[in-house]
Amino acid sequence: MRDWENNIRKVVPYTPGEQPKNTCVIKLNTNENPYPPAPGVKEVLSNFNTDDLRLYPDPRVDKLVNAIADFYKIDSSKVFVGVGSDDVLAMIFMTFFNSKKPILFPDITYSFYDVWADMLRIPYEQLPLSDDFSIVPSDYYKANGGVVFPNPNAPTGKLMPLDEIEDIIKHNQDVIVVVDEAYVDFGGESALPLIDKYDNVIVVQTFSKSRALAGSRVGFAMASPVLIKYLNDVKYSFNSYTMDRITIEAATAAVKDRAYFEETTAKVIKTREWTKKELKRLGFTFCDSKSNFIFAKPANVSATKLFEDLKADNIFVRHFSSPERINDYLRISIGTDEQMHTLIKFLENYSC
Amino acid sequence: MRDWENNIRKVVPYTPGEQPKNTCVIKLNTNENPYPPAPGVKEVLSNFNTDDLRLYPDPRVDKLVNAIADFYKIDSSKVFVGVGSDDVLAMIFMTFFNSKKPILFPDITYSFYDVWADMLRIPYEQLPLSDDFSIVPSDYYKANGGVVFPNPNAPTGKLMPLDEIEDIIKHNQDVIVVVDEAYVDFGGESALPLIDKYDNVIVVQTFSKSRALAGSRVGFAMASPVLIKYLNDVKYSFNSYTMDRITIEAATAAVKDRAYFEETTAKVIKTREWTKKELKRLGFTFCDSKSNFIFAKPANVSATKLFEDLKADNIFVRHFSSPERINDYLRISIGTDEQMHTLIKFLENYSC
Repeated sequence: MRDWENNIRKVVPYTPGEQPKNTCVIKLNTNENPYPPAPGVKEVLSNFNTDDLRLYPDPRVDKLVNAIADFYKIDSSKVFVGVGSDDVLAMIFMTFFNSKKPILFPDITYSFYDVWADMLRIPYEQLPLSDDFSIVPSDYYKANGGVVFPNPNAPTGKLMPLDEIEDIIKHNQDVIVVVDEAYVDFGGESALPLIDKYDNVIVVQTFSKSRALAGSRVGFAMASPVLIKYLNDVKYSFNSYTMDRITIEAATAAVKDRAYFEETTAKVIKTREWTKKELKRLGFTFCDSKSNFIFAKPANVSATKLFEDLKADNIFVRHFSSPERINDYLRISIGTDEQMHTLIKFLENYSC
Repeated sequence: MRDWENNIRKVVPYTPGEQPKNTCVIKLNTNENPYPPAPGVKEVLSNFNTDDLRLYPDPRVDKLVNAIADFYKIDSSKVFVGVGSDDVLAMIFMTFFNSKKPILFPDITYSFYDVWADMLRIPYEQLPLSDDFSIVPSDYYKANGGVVFPNPNAPTGKLMPLDEIEDIIKHNQDVIVVVDEAYVDFGGESALPLIDKYDNVIVVQTFSKSRALAGSRVGFAMASPVLIKYLNDVKYSFNSYTMDRITIEAATAAVKDRAYFEETTAKVIKTREWTKKELKRLGFTFCDSKSNFIFAKPANVSATKLFEDLKADNIFVRHFSSPERINDYLRISIGTDEQMHTLIKFLENYSC
């Protein structure tokens, strides 16, 4: 072994969901939106002057920051943007989670939290969800270096009521509390109003789900101007120009089209509710998802077997082999009505 | 002060060059390419199917990685891509610079190295350039936690011969040595062949200068497959999907057009050599730049005054107020022939 190997930051990397190259696949494995992005995005591409790509983008990303601020009716000093909410969350971990006390998050949750903590050498404690997969607010009353959880939670899709979130925040006034709302637009209630009441709260959202721009990589955080400033300081020290020129324009067009956003999220919700009824009829058990996926346990077959059989039939869903408590479940993204009909038909005819 | 403030990573952020919104400006302040990106980039935008943006991009970025590997005639296992070379360098600092010994870099150099080291709490030592702004290889013989320098150096534009680079590498077999070649395509000689001879060497390049895609944010590293794997492990632990779908296509088109690349870099070099002659005639002193900028000291006026007077005339160049040794200099990016004629004409008529 060479000496330089001692100085390497060795990590166990996150494994992203499969991105099959076969386009015949019904892709219900990475919680993408089944509908295209807002029509304005197409226009952006048609009208974009390619010659401008020779110039650096605006490092402050004012145009997109202002469009997000307008949409949520908040001041632009309360908005931070990044290359997907993963980038935003990684920056938050780097900026705010530098205590010697452990940060707290659920044991069953977005699988990146422990990856970031491990990579950044942040101590952490994973608090078990209750038997019905709920986050228990009182578990978060103990001394800690910060708190982060998704709402709705992943991969359960379960929503925590806003008063319980506020309870966690009230008991954690000495640390930063991050509410990761990647899926909140599909029927959840955002903690956004709490950023004005508590200066230690950060709400994180993404353009990858409800705004159908997973391929563009855009996420954002909303918090008090003081927190946004600290976050920008670290971001400018890491990579000043993260958002490229085309993405700034595309994401701005997407966020400006409120009607399309409301229409497509409503469609996803409607399809989800239909899928729930069908899955229930077929004996599946699942939490009452308020996200664009359903985390469901089949009745008479192992999740692993059903996962493989679906895949053989070109229907991709997601299976997590660990932790053990969830390996009987499959996470099924909500596709179009047609895709969900195909899935339900497969399950109706399925005998293992 | 609230308790959470103690846990914040406080940094002094890098200040990016001005991005004036006034388009009448002659912009010679951020080393952008005066020519547009390869024609294939325009085609990419015209033909891009916006609907695909709803899907996550390929986290491995195979298409672009393979195109870069083809261009440089190396195996794709030796290529890593990121969101600009700043992202690539930040990932390298995180992955490889984890020793308690200081990393070494020049005192006058790319102004981001100390920002990353400060932000990531990496100890460092800045080694003074010689009186003629040369990097002195023997300064880098001492024990250290890693070595990084640009070649050509920034903001001097001065090229270090390959045998001196190899000398530094030979004396640093126990650490990672990073050669940052942002400007190498404008007449420099790349250290790329050394990655096969030494498994501890990383060569970093960017699409922001010679490939005219500063607005797209693309950079890359080339090194032994072992180093690339460690780098990808950390990258996948930080942000799995950094490169967006449009940028992957645009950058692939750019790298595939070797003829356009050679033609436009040759034009920049020709304009640079003409500008050198003119600046010399006007009494400026400067290093023999092999980059797309000239770091020049005016004869009878302070750099600060000339900087302001140029700006008042809508000609933007870059002035660094620190370190003191360089505050008599201006960094002038190479624009089109027409832009450089305008600059020279201004200087001819200039009396302070």
